[in-house]
Amino acid sequence: MTSTPAAHDPNKMAVLRRTQAVFSVLLVLFVSPLPCHNVPAYQKPVMVQQTGKVLPKPQMLTVSAEAYTLAMSGFKFTYGSSSQMCDIVDQAFRRYYDLIFVVDGVKKAPVVSKDMSELTELQIMVKEPCTGVYPSLESSENYTLTVAAPMGTLVADSAWGVLRGLETFSQLVYRTDDGMIIINKTTVDDFPRFAHRGILLDTSRHFIPIKYIKQNLDAMAYNKFNVFHWHIVDDPSFPYQSVAFPDLSAKGAFNPYTHLYTQEDVKDVIEYSRLRGIRVVPEFDTPGHTASWGAGLPGFLTPCYDGSAPNGKYYAANPMLNTTYDYMTKLLQEIKDVFPDKYVHLGGDEVSFNCWKSNPDITKFMEKMGFGTDYSKLEEYYIKNILDITTSVGRDYIVWQEVLDNGVQVAKDTVVEVWRRKPPVPTEMARVTAKGLRAILSSCWYLNRISYGVDWGQYYTCEPLNFTGTQAQKDLVIGGEACMWGEYVDGTNLIARLWPRASAVAERLWSNKDVTSMADATVRMDEQRCRMVRRGLNAEPLHPGFCQFEYD
Amino acid sequence: MTSTPAAHDPNKMAVLRRTQAVFSVLLVLFVSPLPCHNVPAYQKPVMVQQTGKVLPKPQMLTVSAEAYTLAMSGFKFTYGSSSQMCDIVDQAFRRYYDLIFVVDGVKKAPVVSKDMSELTELQIMVKEPCTGVYPSLESSENYTLTVAAPMGTLVADSAWGVLRGLETFSQLVYRTDDGMIIINKTTVDDFPRFAHRGILLDTSRHFIPIKYIKQNLDAMAYNKFNVFHWHIVDDPSFPYQSVAFPDLSAKGAFNPYTHLYTQEDVKDVIEYSRLRGIRVVPEFDTPGHTASWGAGLPGFLTPCYDGSAPNGKYYAANPMLNTTYDYMTKLLQEIKDVFPDKYVHLGGDEVSFNCWKSNPDITKFMEKMGFGTDYSKLEEYYIKNILDITTSVGRDYIVWQEVLDNGVQVAKDTVVEVWRRKPPVPTEMARVTAKGLRAILSSCWYLNRISYGVDWGQYYTCEPLNFTGTQAQKDLVIGGEACMWGEYVDGTNLIARLWPRASAVAERLWSNKDVTSMADATVRMDEQRCRMVRRGLNAEPLHPGFCQFEYD
Repeated sequence: MTSTPAAHDPNKMAVLRRTQAVFSVLLVLFVSPLPCHNVPAYQKPVMVQQTGKVLPKPQMLTVSAEAYTLAMSGFKFTYGSSSQMCDIVDQAFRRYYDLIFVVDGVKKAPVVSKDMSELTELQIMVKEPCTGVYPSLESSENYTLTVAAPMGTLVADSAWGVLRGLETFSQLVYRTDDGMIIINKTTVDDFPRFAHRGILLDTSRHFIPIKYIKQNLDAMAYNKFNVFHWHIVDDPSFPYQSVAFPDLSAKGAFNPYTHLYTQEDVKDVIEYSRLRGIRVVPEFDTPGHTASWGAGLPGFLTPCYDGSAPNGKYYAANPMLNTTYDYMTKLLQEIKDVFPDKYVHLGGDEVSFNCWKSNPDITKFMEKMGFGTDYSKLEEYYIKNILDITTSVGRDYIVWQEVLDNGVQVAKDTVVEVWRRKPPVPTEMARVTAKGLRAILSSCWYLNRISYGVDWGQYYTCEPLNFTGTQAQKDLVIGGEACMWGEYVDGTNLIARLWPRASAVAERLWSNKDVTSMADATVRMDEQRCRMVRRGLNAEPLHPGFCQFEYD
Repeated sequence: MTSTPAAHDPNKMAVLRRTQAVFSVLLVLFVSPLPCHNVPAYQKPVMVQQTGKVLPKPQMLTVSAEAYTLAMSGFKFTYGSSSQMCDIVDQAFRRYYDLIFVVDGVKKAPVVSKDMSELTELQIMVKEPCTGVYPSLESSENYTLTVAAPMGTLVADSAWGVLRGLETFSQLVYRTDDGMIIINKTTVDDFPRFAHRGILLDTSRHFIPIKYIKQNLDAMAYNKFNVFHWHIVDDPSFPYQSVAFPDLSAKGAFNPYTHLYTQEDVKDVIEYSRLRGIRVVPEFDTPGHTASWGAGLPGFLTPCYDGSAPNGKYYAANPMLNTTYDYMTKLLQEIKDVFPDKYVHLGGDEVSFNCWKSNPDITKFMEKMGFGTDYSKLEEYYIKNILDITTSVGRDYIVWQEVLDNGVQVAKDTVVEVWRRKPPVPTEMARVTAKGLRAILSSCWYLNRISYGVDWGQYYTCEPLNFTGTQAQKDLVIGGEACMWGEYVDGTNLIARLWPRASAVAERLWSNKDVTSMADATVRMDEQRCRMVRRGLNAEPLHPGFCQFEYD
């Protein structure tokens, strides 16, 4: 058995339960007096209805008590007369029309009240040309939304701003239990606090079918994330189908037919992301985390030795061979052709020196290069070459913090991803930015790590700018990423495990830094989780309670 | 970034990966040197194919190297000439035919080798009449299975034994990558170690749609569980639609239309369970855990006082009123009519005395009854009445351990469920059985509690008979239950969170006590998880790796 309730008034409880009101919090408070039970103290069941609360919270939002109905037949999205037009916005119109009017997979005409004014149109104004555009770190996502009957307006510089504004619009809309679709008179002036708001998925430790990658992209759009950091290959498997080196997946994927991302799959994911204003930043992590590369790229990995003889094992890219850099040049050229994003993530983390140290050829190379016995210089040599190759093919790069920690000279426009907790995060953030480099934070957002109970508060309260530094240093922090490493995650549990926990990160990265009330966030987190459930995603519950529309 | 791989031979890795062999363990060993990362050391990716390993491990199993093919058109289940026939077995034939031949929702004719003998028939012999039967604690689940071409035989006393045998048969069958369906020559003589092997679902803290209750019943059947302990109501909500007291759900359900188990739903669940040899034991927990009862059953709960005045709060059944027992009599009569199982779970756990102590009427009643200030006597008085009512309506009962801990006199055929960890589990198990009472263990199987990494070992190694006592005492331990309390669980994450972790409990409760090798169990756990995935359940991964057929 589980928890002891505090005393309460059952009649009041029943009345509240039936109330069609905004987010009824039932008066049952649970406590957990038993140390053996280990249930957190916060245990009230909550009834969640969509009432038009927006997550992440907009920078400026004014909601009036005046409410309008939306009629399915009467409502339309339109372009303003001087607006740019493009596929991104066209398709967004279609998606958001469905998200507003579909319940349980069915477009159900809402009940319309004759006593209320009707919102019949949301007119969109896109200032910049948007046909065929691809999002970037510099993209504007600003938008201004005015909801007033009969016609609302949504104005944005770019199509990306329109996407963010339409998401906000769709969240402002709610459905009452008696079947009306309502939106209140509202004005929103909104923009993101950080430009880089990412989710990392690891498709190497487990293969994640495209279906769930797309579900996750949907969830990202619902939470205004804008970077899909695709940790596509790693030690366990190489599911990326390379044109230049088809053997990499043929010999390195878990299964070269069923556990593979073909070129078509990758194109599909990139386009699906683009239409949602999400950049796809692929990661090809070297020199470590490359075990799965070995079979398909003979000679790429370093042979390890026991004494004077090779022991048959291999580890990490071989940094002394020209062929290694030839391989990487060819691969990075392909990556540039396949992935339109300006950035590629080059990894560079967790390199062990044991195998390099065991190899007599490496030892000779170290002597020749004057590295002495400092293997971090060898690592630096490798990384420096890879960075240069990346620059030469025309891509900027993101690297894990070790590259900087190990003293590698990097270009000024390098982005450093801080993931470790030692040195302490504020120390590292200060160090990275003191060098004039841009930083992304992920240390506090390893959402693959789970624990029993309510854990999203720790993600919500992690503040990227919580370090000592100048304003110029703070300005170099471009955002953060929630990471879902794949040791224990695949299509069976990805969405439930990541959402709505990642929504806490979404708000931290988008909303004003003063948006810190956990009580306020709890209400929006609950509504956001139920909203995602209504939209067909199996986002898991945060505490006892229920949604107006359950996952079924 | 996550983990550092040990050096290994990439070529060997690739060869193994392509091997159509039994359970290829890839040679990549990961270690986690970083305290901040907190990834368990056991990190090898595993390729799991179905190779006919059975979980829970049968008592006696002999598998020969001789293998047969199964052809979809040629294979059939039949009754032996002197066998009993019934709907339970008929429907099991249909289900297992599909489980054997369906891949990705499609019945795909297997490739047949001309070089192998063909198994064309499995002939079933049921000794006892089985039409319309309902399972019980005393049901025989024994079976003997002989697989030899051209005809195998499955012999069992009861239809329940046939169900267990068909599950074993379906697990012995495996599908090769080149499309053949294979079974090896095998003999199995099998029976459960414990008669009560349960899963508790809590449908009060969250409503679980029937769809997921059924998915869980499927998973239970795949793992030879035989008791669905339906913790159907509790403080947060009352989703059971009572015929006698319709207001209980009308006023106590989260929503009386959408978050409700109607009488038809309950019948449906009971029949679905029966056809799988699963008993449905409903729990109506009193006197505590009844907050949701209050609105629908006026006067049932105890008014709490601040000083001399009621404070408007209520807690627990009011044990001094005759109406309380009238209510419970009527409800228990209904429960007897609705639920065919011989047992009802009466709860009786975690009763706080604070409200009772505050109430002056209760104080007077205590004096009148001569209870002094010992409120456990009042609790005993309540429980004793409820137990007597239950007996009088013709049902046996299961209670949580507090009932016994508090000294309530219970009937000799009471079953006590041990769930607390204090007093230590062995102490409690010895105490319960020393009184001649039967015990069920759940303390070590609270699967709602999650943690990061591989956690099923703790469930696997929990031994119910690990206490000091006579053989007669050990014989009183009738089994155990894996509990999935609902604070953080609903349809979005139930299946992934419970399976395959509960498979570890399944094996502990079914297999011989000497089946304790974690290494051996790991192989079967992996195959069982991939088998459940192939059967359409989103059972989550246990460690890095992949299944032949992923969840998609």
